[in-house]
Parts: sequence; C-alpha cells; structure tokens
Amino acid sequence: MRQASDILTFPTAGQGLTEITGELAAWLAGTGLREGLLTMLCRHTSASLLIQENAAPEVRGDLVDWLDRLAPQGPHYRHDDEGPDDMPAHLKATLTGVNLQVPVLSGRMALGTWQGIYLAEHRSRPHRRQVAVHVIGA
Amino acid sequence: MRQASDILTFPTAGQGLTEITGELAAWLAGTGLREGLLTMLCRHTSASLLIQENAAPEVRGDLVDWLDRLAPQGPHYRHDDEGPDDMPAHLKATLTGVNLQVPVLSGRMALGTWQGIYLAEHRSRPHRRQVAVHVIGA
Amino acid sequence: MRQASDILTFPTAGQGLTEITGELAAWLAGTGLREGLLTMLCRHTSASLLIQENAAPEVRGDLVDWLDRLAPQGPHYRHDDEGPDDMPAHLKATLTGVNLQVPVLSGRMALGTWQGIYLAEHRSRPHRRQVAVHVIGA
Repeated sequence: MRQASDILTFPTAGQGLTEITGELAAWLAGTGLREGLLTMLCRHTSASLLIQENAAPEVRGDLVDWLDRLAPQGPHYRHDDEGPDDMPAHLKATLTGVNLQVPVLSGRMALGTWQGIYLAEHRSRPHRRQVAVHVIGA
Repeated sequence: MRQASDILTFPTAGQGLTEITGELAAWLAGTGLREGLLTMLCRHTSASLLIQENAAPEVRGDLVDWLDRLAPQGPHYRHDDEGPDDMPAHLKATLTGVNLQVPVLSGRMALGTWQGIYLAEHRSRPHRRQVAVHVIGA
Repeated sequence: MRQASDILTFPTAGQGLTEITGELAAWLAGTGLREGLLTMLCRHTSASLLIQENAAPEVRGDLVDWLDRLAPQGPHYRHDDEGPDDMPAHLKATLTGVNLQVPVLSGRMALGTWQGIYLAEHRSRPHRRQVAVHVIGA
C-alpha cells in the first residue's frame, strides 16, 4: 500500500466549466497505482469541482445559467470587495463543493460512462486554479 | 492495511429517495474491515447520493419537492434530449453530489443516530443505478 | 501506512458558521501523520461542513442569508416536528453536505490560502455537534 500527492494547476477562461478528466487520468497513470482511492480538493473559494455529463455540451451551459439564477449578482450582498461577481462566486462554489473522490479500479477512475470531472470557474475573468490531488492504494 | 472495492447496483422506483444504508453496511461487513474509510460514488449524472434523516419520512418528500422548486422543469433549458425531466435531473444531481465518505469505527459506519444514506433518483422513470464502493483500512 | 480516527464535539451558537480549522489542525498534528488524507463527517442532518473564505467575515453573513432565501421557513413543508427552522435546516445541510476531505502534505492540510473549514449550524438554537474525523497515511 502506498500513496502519492501533488498540486496541479489549471487555467480557466472565465466563468464556465473546464473538463479536467484527461489531466487527472494522466496524473493517476503516472503514479502506477492500480486499485485505490483518488481525492481532489480545489484550493479556492470561488472555483469548485463537480462531476457531470461529458457528452452534450448544452448541459454545461444550462448548469452555468442555473447557478446564475440561484446566486444572482445584485446589491443585496455585504461582500463585494472584488466586484459584483465576487459573492455569487463564493455561493456557487459552496453549492457545488470543492471535493471529489473517485475509486480507482484496474488502474482507471471508476467513473460512469457519461461522467466527466469539471473544474468550475465562478469568477468572470480567467484565473489559474490549483487542485490538490491524492491517491492511496496499491 | 488493505482495501476492497466493488460496483453495487440498485433499482429505483423513479423520482425519489431510496435508502441504501443496509446494503452498504452488509457489503462493508463482508469485507471484514474494522477501522477505515468507506467511499461511495454514484456513477450517473442524473442520480446522486446524500445523507439525511432516516426517521421522519416527511423529510424525504419535502426534500424532493424542494429540489423541484430549485430546478423546475420548463422551456428555458437548451438540453432536453431525453424529455422535460432530463436537465432538472442533472441540476439536482449537481446540487446534492455523487460522492459520500464515512469513517468506519469498530466495524460500523460512523453515521449519526438519525443519518441514513440515500440514493436519489432524479429522473421520473425507474432506473438501475450503479454505486462504486471502496473501503481502505484494517 | 497507518490511520487514526476520533469523534470531535463542537458547540455552536445557533444558526451560523463556526470555523473549526484550528481544532482539526491540532487533532491532525496529534496523530503525527505527515502525508495522507483527512476525512470529516458531520454526524447530523441539520448541521453540515463546508470550506469557504476565512478572511472577510461578510462572506459568512451573505452565505447564511443566501441559504435562508433558498430554503425559507414557511407553511409549505410536511415536516415541522421541531418547529419552523426544522425542515429548512435539513435542506441547507443537504445543499452544503456533511463530508469534507483534505489531502495532508508535510504534516499540514493542503488548504488554499483563503480556505477555512466551517461547521454550519442550520438550527436557530445552539447545539453540540459531533464530527467524525479519520486520517490515513504515513
């Protein structure tokens, strides 16, 4: 039994979802672990991680619009240090969460057929985002 | 230290919550692990996992109604490949999440007194859903 | 490779967020583990765990207000055994979730610069809340 960990960095293009399944799979392959548990932590409070459909791109657009409806910009926030997209970004990151775990089976993430892992950028402008990754197993 | 993993399949009766605590406890007991960490991943994008009260059944009905209010059906989605319950199901799965982790103490899941583990079906019709399970410990 | 686990208890002051990063860091330090994975489970259905900004306190106030808007009190719930704040508390706990995982690097949680770990109390009155903690690594 052994473990590996790292901090991966991903650029985002502003508000929206960036699929990072391939980068995570490559990192996992590099560890040589075949059976175990992969954990990810987005190290930010206005970006997050989620698993969603990687087939129809419309799903991502609808998801971003829905988050905008649930956490709209507006004058009703106390916190607006970094502009009108600041507090809504914190709320969207809270709703979607900053953690994911995926069991590893036969050297691969045990994702479903239609599941992809997405880094969700909730700020308007592009950022560089860090994801801490950890795997433990054999 | 050792680990075990599996893919469990559960039928759902259409939209609603199905308690799977007992099935998970039985699988865990079969591994013989006494101390460790149990992880679950729902391998779908329109079903999810959550921990909620397993005493009052009204909680489940109110929870399902609340998800319907937050992610209502309607003509405002781009994605409707599989009908009007399709995109709302993706949104509800995103809100509730597809991952759970429970520490294992003395051979049992360290759940609180009132906590049960639920598979949440967000599509209208019954489905068969897969949950990847992994435990590591001693 | 080894593991440690415990049940920690935290008092809350009623609805709001209590930062528990320091207590968790102290518990982790006591285990002596330097590399690994820390998991937390809130053992309740009306309190939860989340990671959010620990700099601007306004973020916490805005977050609590937002949860009140998404899950308002009202006569539309079937479940009100323990008063008008009962069912909204279950809904807020479901939205934010009861699990967190943080990789451990060089003996410290790999949190981002602005991230703190919060116990979210969703009931109006103060409670004592239990968090199951588990760490595995070396």
